[in-house]
Amino acid sequence: MRPTVYIKDLSQHVGKEVILKGWLYNKRSSGKLKFLILRDGTGYVQCVVFKGNVSEEIFESAEKLTQESSFEVKGKVREEKRAVGGFELDVIDLKIISIAHEYPITPKEHGIEFLIDNRHLWVRSKKQVAILKIRHRIIKAIRDFFDQRGFVLFDPPIITPNACEGTSTLFEMDYFDLGKAYLTQSGQLYAESGAMALGKVYTFGPTFRAEKSKTRRHLTEFWMVEPEMAFYNLDDDMDLAEEFIEYIIQTVLKEMKEELKELERDTTNLEKVVRPFPRISYSEAVEILKRKGVDFQWGNDLGGTDETFIGEEFDRPVMIHRYPAEVKAFYMKRDPENPKVALAVDVIAPEGYGEIIGGSQREDDLDALLFRIKEHNLPQSFFEWYLDLRRYGSVPHAGFGLGLERTVSWICGLDHLREAIPFPRMIYRNTP
Amino acid sequence: MRPTVYIKDLSQHVGKEVILKGWLYNKRSSGKLKFLILRDGTGYVQCVVFKGNVSEEIFESAEKLTQESSFEVKGKVREEKRAVGGFELDVIDLKIISIAHEYPITPKEHGIEFLIDNRHLWVRSKKQVAILKIRHRIIKAIRDFFDQRGFVLFDPPIITPNACEGTSTLFEMDYFDLGKAYLTQSGQLYAESGAMALGKVYTFGPTFRAEKSKTRRHLTEFWMVEPEMAFYNLDDDMDLAEEFIEYIIQTVLKEMKEELKELERDTTNLEKVVRPFPRISYSEAVEILKRKGVDFQWGNDLGGTDETFIGEEFDRPVMIHRYPAEVKAFYMKRDPENPKVALAVDVIAPEGYGEIIGGSQREDDLDALLFRIKEHNLPQSFFEWYLDLRRYGSVPHAGFGLGLERTVSWICGLDHLREAIPFPRMIYRNTP
Repeated sequence: MRPTVYIKDLSQHVGKEVILKGWLYNKRSSGKLKFLILRDGTGYVQCVVFKGNVSEEIFESAEKLTQESSFEVKGKVREEKRAVGGFELDVIDLKIISIAHEYPITPKEHGIEFLIDNRHLWVRSKKQVAILKIRHRIIKAIRDFFDQRGFVLFDPPIITPNACEGTSTLFEMDYFDLGKAYLTQSGQLYAESGAMALGKVYTFGPTFRAEKSKTRRHLTEFWMVEPEMAFYNLDDDMDLAEEFIEYIIQTVLKEMKEELKELERDTTNLEKVVRPFPRISYSEAVEILKRKGVDFQWGNDLGGTDETFIGEEFDRPVMIHRYPAEVKAFYMKRDPENPKVALAVDVIAPEGYGEIIGGSQREDDLDALLFRIKEHNLPQSFFEWYLDLRRYGSVPHAGFGLGLERTVSWICGLDHLREAIPFPRMIYRNTP
Repeated sequence: MRPTVYIKDLSQHVGKEVILKGWLYNKRSSGKLKFLILRDGTGYVQCVVFKGNVSEEIFESAEKLTQESSFEVKGKVREEKRAVGGFELDVIDLKIISIAHEYPITPKEHGIEFLIDNRHLWVRSKKQVAILKIRHRIIKAIRDFFDQRGFVLFDPPIITPNACEGTSTLFEMDYFDLGKAYLTQSGQLYAESGAMALGKVYTFGPTFRAEKSKTRRHLTEFWMVEPEMAFYNLDDDMDLAEEFIEYIIQTVLKEMKEELKELERDTTNLEKVVRPFPRISYSEAVEILKRKGVDFQWGNDLGGTDETFIGEEFDRPVMIHRYPAEVKAFYMKRDPENPKVALAVDVIAPEGYGEIIGGSQREDDLDALLFRIKEHNLPQSFFEWYLDLRRYGSVPHAGFGLGLERTVSWICGLDHLREAIPFPRMIYRNTP
């Protein structure tokens, strides 16, 4: 019963009879002709029902089909340059599978809350289908990139006994008789143990932040990929990050032309995303802000607006390195040449999409790390296993994290992260 | 500073000088010679330090190295059939990076609790490295299989507002002002909405069961892949499942020979995993049990021991279909030819590894599904969005779920799931 031909493969069946199965995307009539746009998830094709070619019954079936009704159609494939997808089907037979109730999502404009309430149906829309396919292709590009370079996937735990970066934004739960447990915010610390075992690893899974933030750049549940490499310093880390971003962007540009067109994405700026990316220090970034008239103090963290200001100065992603140690995490290594700054790097996407990568060289000295843990008032006992990585064959190492949904939003040109994931989770929403 | 040569690539450097970076796996001395086994995550190589070839200082450095100490070594690559990996390094220079404290995991036997307490170090052991690499290769095979067949990855939410299969085994949490939320047990219901949008989708992510079960076949956090296909019936579903399993096994057998050898896995039985797999109905399975003297009543669910008994009858995975509807989930379609049974299928792995796949054709009739929801005392309001998939263009569809860690255990020949994932989570353990 499963389909033997999908719409995306119609070019291989020109002049032949095929059976297609799917849903009615749109319909119009013109006297003895009915034009049915069928969608099957792989594409769209216009099915032409001519009264002279089919029985009365079949013509009436075509009449009955409502938006999103499911049906099976038999017909001859014809090349038709002007049609969607480049082909048309001359219908010979048509079987209704299920007539849809009045479909709530119509071509008219809907409010965003209504659309997210109906996310289980909204994903059928042309634009959402294109985004989801691009998301899939980005994920594949990410995995291919690391797999081809000798990285081993190293899935970190989701349920963790302690916090990686503070406890205020953690989702908490009871874990049997073992007390509280938390949803992971990052797999990095675990990835470091993997790098000591396997050399180069990456994690790729869901991460969580119970942040009371309602901006368009925040989800409470999002996917993150985090490579971690033994014997890499900050420069190596930046080399890898720029190669990685270039690979993702150029792969998607090459392979997802149709979907990007569907989204009306102007790809001019994406095409410029080729190595080398500009690399500036945090101090140089502060100079840029001051030159632009922003009242900014050395030592503060860069905010979203600051990042946008800096991003505007460059035609491709910009790497900002060596941040004041105070605004960065305890595990980042200090610059031996200037202990006020951490060997950290953030990569800022162009077009106002903000930080898409955050990374650093990690502190590999046991005593320095112990000192930081105390300085940050973190419970040392929680980090004994992490300290072990410095006790037993410590090596210089580095890594970074890339937020998947931010990357999808940037590439697709979306206003809000909520369309970059099938079922978005935000502070005020955990349904459907 | 990053390594330019890794051990796995030594064959390309025979007769040349290379610099390797890694950790001391093992060491022995013989007069003027020191034999250092270096591991770098990609392999193992014996580095030969001959007193006559190096300075006193370097020879003393070699002396100082303890198990898991990190070092950098320069030397000439020589083919040596008898050595691990087939090559040896004649050492010219050696730099200590970090001397390891006394390493807790020694070649002697350790208790399993001790090893899991030290999981962050245990992952460096030869056997664990082999398992983790095979796990990675299995995951890649899974993704390649679906990507090559036109499936779109469709990540379901992890935080869900309601339970897919009962509430007793759910991890619960507070979700801001929206009340309780739960960690997902399965992405299937969401995948169904994806199949209606994209035709064929798969989910692949962590799933959770707060089961108070201490058996070797249970983790509270495990990864599951779940394909879902529009216009597939139970037979199509079984065709896909057997093609899928064959693909995974044969790919791993072909590409992970060395790692399987490291695990001393007898692959005789794995080699037999080729299509077609035997397909028997639940009723036929009951007959087998009775013939074997098991006191089993038609209508009960098959337990682990029953599955092992049935599995023993066949030389490859066996597909058991058409279970009593009462023991299966509410969303499974009844067999039109026998409404007592559901169009479900479980795939039982050989060698006692139990159920690795559970799947079914889904109920696509709105009224039948409404009836089941009431019959199971499930709150209809939670399932309105799911019912929408039957209101708007319902089609026959089917899917299944494969447990990743069970598959890894089977292929690697492991006794317990805890070694099949980097950081296992069990009822009595959520650390490190």
